[in-house]
Amino acid sequence: MEMKKPCPHCGKDIVMYRNPVPTVDVVIFVPGGVSGSDGVVLIERLNPPFGWALPGGFVDYGESCEQAAVREMKEETGLDVSLTGMLGVYSDPGRDPRHHTMSVVYTGVASDISQLKAGDDAVSAKVYALGTWPEPAFDHGLILNDFCACHDRLNQTFANRQSD
Amino acid sequence: MEMKKPCPHCGKDIVMYRNPVPTVDVVIFVPGGVSGSDGVVLIERLNPPFGWALPGGFVDYGESCEQAAVREMKEETGLDVSLTGMLGVYSDPGRDPRHHTMSVVYTGVASDISQLKAGDDAVSAKVYALGTWPEPAFDHGLILNDFCACHDRLNQTFANRQSD
Repeated sequence: MEMKKPCPHCGKDIVMYRNPVPTVDVVIFVPGGVSGSDGVVLIERLNPPFGWALPGGFVDYGESCEQAAVREMKEETGLDVSLTGMLGVYSDPGRDPRHHTMSVVYTGVASDISQLKAGDDAVSAKVYALGTWPEPAFDHGLILNDFCACHDRLNQTFANRQSD
Repeated sequence: MEMKKPCPHCGKDIVMYRNPVPTVDVVIFVPGGVSGSDGVVLIERLNPPFGWALPGGFVDYGESCEQAAVREMKEETGLDVSLTGMLGVYSDPGRDPRHHTMSVVYTGVASDISQLKAGDDAVSAKVYALGTWPEPAFDHGLILNDFCACHDRLNQTFANRQSD
């Protein structure tokens, strides 16, 4: 989409092309991580919109989405994360109140969950048992529900195979 | 990524943030579409890099990736397309020789394949039987190989179930 923005020096309009800003988020899965129950890592945001959210951030020019995801997990949670799949792409224009972002959401696991700590842009970081989190920021409640539905389906398939 | 670009009017540097540009492509599947063999729609590009490619284009600010995919299919192929799934996100920084793009690639089917025609940015449009296309532009050969592998797996699963 073509848009015009004034130069901060001379004030004349500059023509630019505007697209949704690409981001990545990761659902870091922690099997049996909360008193034996499966959990995921959430961070408490330092900046508005406040609240709990999936760790993630912007994709830099020159890096792949997978590289961005691994880099952001290290920066935001202190964790070395291996990606295990893609949950989906979330691009509704209203998903972020500040501007239009689109997020490629991966699933992943940490090599050592004991290294979890709040990094850049986070007040705290915590493993929540599935479904026990406070209402998350952005559309992360929707993303986490999608993850839980996927987790339930996989566990049900596994249970069915065990009983065959 | 922060970058500086000179104002075209006053020449002074303006600080901007640069990210990969989000695009969408669709593998439009045409079952039995080439003398009874399964095929997909490719377009011959009007602009460099020349050659055959999947139909697709940029995601506009304010539209979802799914909306962009359906809009681009209409503009580039004349087809009304229903999306049937997501094949993947392709974001290698070298995938487009002009600049860093990332593509969300969907699968889809046309409501009426007889409406196929070359639209914006295309010299021609054609249904190719799987694996019979000339070497495609960008990383679309990789994407099409991924689609063929997925198609083979699904057909094999179906054949196994039929023979159970």
